[in-house]
Amino acid sequence: MIGHGFMGAAHSVGWRQAPAAFPLPAQPVMTALVGRDRETTAAAADRWGWQETSTDWRETIARDDIDIVDIVTPGDTHAEIAVAALAAGKHVLCEKPLANTVAEAEQMADAATRAARSGIRSMVGFTYRRVPAATLMRDMVADGRIGAVRQVRAGYRQDWLADAEAPMTWRLDKDRAGSGSLGDIGAHAIDMCQFVTGQSLTSVSGVLETIVKERPLLAASVGLGGTAGAGRGTVTVDDVALFNARLESGALASFEATRFATGRKNALEIEISGDRGALYWNLEDMNALQFYDATADAGEQGFTRILVTEPQHPYLSGWWPAGHMLGYEHGFSHQVKDFVEAIAVGAQPSPSFDEGLRVQRVLDAVARSSAEGSAWTEV
Amino acid sequence: MIGHGFMGAAHSVGWRQAPAAFPLPAQPVMTALVGRDRETTAAAADRWGWQETSTDWRETIARDDIDIVDIVTPGDTHAEIAVAALAAGKHVLCEKPLANTVAEAEQMADAATRAARSGIRSMVGFTYRRVPAATLMRDMVADGRIGAVRQVRAGYRQDWLADAEAPMTWRLDKDRAGSGSLGDIGAHAIDMCQFVTGQSLTSVSGVLETIVKERPLLAASVGLGGTAGAGRGTVTVDDVALFNARLESGALASFEATRFATGRKNALEIEISGDRGALYWNLEDMNALQFYDATADAGEQGFTRILVTEPQHPYLSGWWPAGHMLGYEHGFSHQVKDFVEAIAVGAQPSPSFDEGLRVQRVLDAVARSSAEGSAWTEV
Amino acid sequence: MIGHGFMGAAHSVGWRQAPAAFPLPAQPVMTALVGRDRETTAAAADRWGWQETSTDWRETIARDDIDIVDIVTPGDTHAEIAVAALAAGKHVLCEKPLANTVAEAEQMADAATRAARSGIRSMVGFTYRRVPAATLMRDMVADGRIGAVRQVRAGYRQDWLADAEAPMTWRLDKDRAGSGSLGDIGAHAIDMCQFVTGQSLTSVSGVLETIVKERPLLAASVGLGGTAGAGRGTVTVDDVALFNARLESGALASFEATRFATGRKNALEIEISGDRGALYWNLEDMNALQFYDATADAGEQGFTRILVTEPQHPYLSGWWPAGHMLGYEHGFSHQVKDFVEAIAVGAQPSPSFDEGLRVQRVLDAVARSSAEGSAWTEV
Amino acid sequence: MIGHGFMGAAHSVGWRQAPAAFPLPAQPVMTALVGRDRETTAAAADRWGWQETSTDWRETIARDDIDIVDIVTPGDTHAEIAVAALAAGKHVLCEKPLANTVAEAEQMADAATRAARSGIRSMVGFTYRRVPAATLMRDMVADGRIGAVRQVRAGYRQDWLADAEAPMTWRLDKDRAGSGSLGDIGAHAIDMCQFVTGQSLTSVSGVLETIVKERPLLAASVGLGGTAGAGRGTVTVDDVALFNARLESGALASFEATRFATGRKNALEIEISGDRGALYWNLEDMNALQFYDATADAGEQGFTRILVTEPQHPYLSGWWPAGHMLGYEHGFSHQVKDFVEAIAVGAQPSPSFDEGLRVQRVLDAVARSSAEGSAWTEV
Repeated sequence: MIGHGFMGAAHSVGWRQAPAAFPLPAQPVMTALVGRDRETTAAAADRWGWQETSTDWRETIARDDIDIVDIVTPGDTHAEIAVAALAAGKHVLCEKPLANTVAEAEQMADAATRAARSGIRSMVGFTYRRVPAATLMRDMVADGRIGAVRQVRAGYRQDWLADAEAPMTWRLDKDRAGSGSLGDIGAHAIDMCQFVTGQSLTSVSGVLETIVKERPLLAASVGLGGTAGAGRGTVTVDDVALFNARLESGALASFEATRFATGRKNALEIEISGDRGALYWNLEDMNALQFYDATADAGEQGFTRILVTEPQHPYLSGWWPAGHMLGYEHGFSHQVKDFVEAIAVGAQPSPSFDEGLRVQRVLDAVARSSAEGSAWTEV
Repeated sequence: MIGHGFMGAAHSVGWRQAPAAFPLPAQPVMTALVGRDRETTAAAADRWGWQETSTDWRETIARDDIDIVDIVTPGDTHAEIAVAALAAGKHVLCEKPLANTVAEAEQMADAATRAARSGIRSMVGFTYRRVPAATLMRDMVADGRIGAVRQVRAGYRQDWLADAEAPMTWRLDKDRAGSGSLGDIGAHAIDMCQFVTGQSLTSVSGVLETIVKERPLLAASVGLGGTAGAGRGTVTVDDVALFNARLESGALASFEATRFATGRKNALEIEISGDRGALYWNLEDMNALQFYDATADAGEQGFTRILVTEPQHPYLSGWWPAGHMLGYEHGFSHQVKDFVEAIAVGAQPSPSFDEGLRVQRVLDAVARSSAEGSAWTEV
Repeated sequence: MIGHGFMGAAHSVGWRQAPAAFPLPAQPVMTALVGRDRETTAAAADRWGWQETSTDWRETIARDDIDIVDIVTPGDTHAEIAVAALAAGKHVLCEKPLANTVAEAEQMADAATRAARSGIRSMVGFTYRRVPAATLMRDMVADGRIGAVRQVRAGYRQDWLADAEAPMTWRLDKDRAGSGSLGDIGAHAIDMCQFVTGQSLTSVSGVLETIVKERPLLAASVGLGGTAGAGRGTVTVDDVALFNARLESGALASFEATRFATGRKNALEIEISGDRGALYWNLEDMNALQFYDATADAGEQGFTRILVTEPQHPYLSGWWPAGHMLGYEHGFSHQVKDFVEAIAVGAQPSPSFDEGLRVQRVLDAVARSSAEGSAWTEV
Repeated sequence: MIGHGFMGAAHSVGWRQAPAAFPLPAQPVMTALVGRDRETTAAAADRWGWQETSTDWRETIARDDIDIVDIVTPGDTHAEIAVAALAAGKHVLCEKPLANTVAEAEQMADAATRAARSGIRSMVGFTYRRVPAATLMRDMVADGRIGAVRQVRAGYRQDWLADAEAPMTWRLDKDRAGSGSLGDIGAHAIDMCQFVTGQSLTSVSGVLETIVKERPLLAASVGLGGTAGAGRGTVTVDDVALFNARLESGALASFEATRFATGRKNALEIEISGDRGALYWNLEDMNALQFYDATADAGEQGFTRILVTEPQHPYLSGWWPAGHMLGYEHGFSHQVKDFVEAIAVGAQPSPSFDEGLRVQRVLDAVARSSAEGSAWTEV
């Protein structure tokens, strides 16, 4: 695995826990953790159970005893590492967003297509698809439980930048992060919409905005934020993104991505209104799926709160009895399960780099629309 | 109408609004309001739309131009007025609890039975039965939507006495109020349980307790409470009642009535667990009924929040389009509608004085059980 | 009162109930109800308590014994009646939206300004402002409880058109209704945003869409909809409106108005994110206001669900003890109270026709933006 | 670790994850898993990461390279194993309930007391105490945030026996399980009440009941239940337990434990009403704690939903950024953390065997009260 920040911790749990939860076709071995700094990398490897460490990712991906490369670095480095790893014949799991630019993402998708011809697999890490309630939502839409999709509302709201004195981090630097709320969390909302509806976004109209334009420089990282140091830096990414979009069917979808929604900590939400029902899901109530069945008896209709912890629900076979909750990191175990299984049977795992590219193109279209006064822009 | 406190206001809205909401078989005329104090009675009559006032209820119930007597005085006066009104050939609507003692309630039920032979009707005012969601709950149980009743949880929680310095009111004086939380709000929980399940309680085991035993005397009434005056009085009623009970079928039910549930303002709650489903209702979310259908597809089960505002729901024909909420006082209009309709067609309205007596007997059994160390006591 | 549809019923309750709930400076007399059809008007008058009826509004507004004209007809008739009534020296309460076009609204606002010079008052019926929780929300924003407004999310979602076979009504005919979801319910979201933030919208970018373009003709009205008759008609208004907007301060707001949100019955929602807190309100949970205090102890922050039924909350002095819910029509009583009080003291009631015009201008700007590919459009 | 059922899986995750989440003073090594059946034990060990297996627990606890024995077998075997392990100088973590009888629990508590003199530690596995929201609840009560405790409502409701054809498992056999809903889940509610209030229960009055008295014999275990085989067996434990209790302070508490609460999957709930506020927590919404501050401004009071995922909240230092949810098994990591830390510093971990015994005594008192017609019974 390359990288060892917040995402490194989450992916490590996935690699550790998946084999305990599910009967995998092959047992993953957590061989090497790669980082820039020898000591912090070693500490992370020790804590998370990686056998060795390295500060040179090129060396690591060249090793014969490594089959899978998991990339959890900031977005500006994804393309170079992924393309090299695929060329070296390694299966690649790459954290989202696929890249910081469409050009890089295209390069990665091309490399993935080429590699697939030799049976080399690649997947991008939109893990929220693998929260059981979200997977069930997709299944229910596909099964026609809500009929034709009429409207979608999607959003991802956090508030960790609501404090104007929260310091700069790499996530606020366009060169490192590519974009702000749009690429970091809006990308999840876009992928979720496309995943659940089974439709791509075809055009968008939106606006990006930086609410707090200057912040203290970072002294030390804590969680997604950190402590403030001396001096101030310029925020070069968006704090909020608001956009409307068209699905392939022509249906309208509205999106919001913001880090200024005071009091909303991690509210990835999606609601789909169909002509036979509706579905609603919120990551802050992640084990529940709300289903409205417009074909039920007229006097008994309402949103049903399905607790997605039953044995027949997606991924639940690996976990606890009904009513015992899953948490944030379970999606990472599910991701490992699906990735390892796809490799084992020689199938294309989803979301593919092509799907990652599709999200990247939406991000790009939103940025262009914003620059052109919210003009509708083809994806 | 005899009495003009909080309940007088609510009943007056019922009499005013019912004819505007529903096509009644007869138009009620709000003839006379009776109270002890001439001036405050006149002010109330003026505000609520009563044509005349009186300070002598005996005189009023003797009038030929009065057909219905509505009693909203404290419980210690119910028996005398109701028995006299029935004897005078007036239909009687009496606010709950029917009386302060079983003996008085029996006397009233006897009078009602005698009067019914001459077509004189009587009803006791458990209006919460007539919140549409509660009525729907009863209908769904009766229709077998949850199968056999296995367990009931019922409670009525308020917190207006949580402040130990809240003053004495007549509701804290056993001589006036009969009992405390048990009779005032526990009575509602008991009636709701019996109404919704269609079963009587047959035995109980419980405990009554006065948490704050002395309070400031009342200076002036405000809402259910008031402002504190000089001196202190002894609270002679219970602050909290906890009891378990058996239904006719043998199923267990648990009850709580308390005015010390800090933060719970008006939480009359009932949940019924059946072998095919469950129903839950809370007066603090009064327009919604929660229904769990245990016969639905295993992966789609969950509590459905039915918003009881659709045209086909009970009493909704008289009100607004779907999704427009009803409030506390609508139950009083429904009560007037049902009472007037029952009189018009010569039917016994429900809850009858007999049903009121049945509640009174449960209250009495709980008090006896509490006095005997929570021994199970027949109702 | 001119008109006797759904809004006629609601306004009638307001006129009936306000004097019973509040000590008004003058007692309203429900003199005359005006409608096109003699019989249905008479039936409505009888039911709601109007003393007389007429089929000629001009005659009625000419009467000397009438001081107030309440207009609850469809939007295309508002301007003519209101201007005439003001010219006749009557105080005018006009249901929202003020008119179907900006030109008409301007004419009405001019007439109101002229009339105000002679002490004649006018108000537009955005009653949702007068739901106590919404009023409290405005008060808390004004008191600085959430600091500077950073973002607003507002929407009004219903689903009564989700059924593609729901019939045409006047609300789907542009000539009668002016616009569809935008003017009917989006107008409430816009007014609520401007009311609560105390800021006007200055520019918008949005899209309107008609999802179901043809519907059965109406046989008979039921609630907001009706039963289908023979033949089909063309829907000439929008089913859904999605738009972003700027407030005076530059803050972004997003809006949605739709009648296709399957399962959402009457969800007027608004959330305001400030730099010191946030507030959220939903008409489907109308008695509760959610408040997030970002200045509270870090470990104790969260959304507080304030049940807005306490004696010190707006308008609650007229109603029930804490925890007893208000319903849809209480706002109409509050409207009557405020209107009558403003007339009595000679003050301008709010929302004025100017405020109604401001909403109309936003509606118009959204329609223009939609026609120009969501280009940002000045209000 | 002795045992490898559902609890074995959960404890294994604790041992695997705690070192990755927290900087422990000593690194646990998952040496040996002990079970009756060689093959299923080997499969479990392989899946969960235990190095060796054994079918003889006596042999295993005799090993010099083992310092800690973790007991996750049914309750009837706890005493023998725990006493032996303590005698062998091993630190013991024993799953709840401590034992099936008070006599066994006393024996274990005695053994623990003796062992503690030589620095040998023991702890009983009431892991729900270590859900961060529950720990925070205890902290806030201890800090006086709700003042004096006035009333407690506690319950644990599941529905996995609501189906009358759900088969017998060892949990329905008094000889193996000790008791039914009372000991299995009621024990959690009792421990949580004592933990959060810091007070013991002193007397109880209650009733136990078996609703479905005969069930199909078990063919194969699935989750907490299983598939039905041929033949029928008699349920010898309670399906539901309802009881009231007194805390040391004299305050009343009500309890419910049931496996027949249709639709409630895992609802461990506790609400504490104090004279300055209230706290409410539900395991089905496990990351949230509801706090009512009765000392806040009168117009702003309400239940605050604190999302207990902030860095300063208990145990959160080991996990994810704010708003990222924890699941069921995190409590087991917290348990390992606290147990290992207590061993390292030579402190008594909590809950001790004495605390486990105290719960056992309450269970026993409830059973005796039920047998004596709900008579109040000293603990």
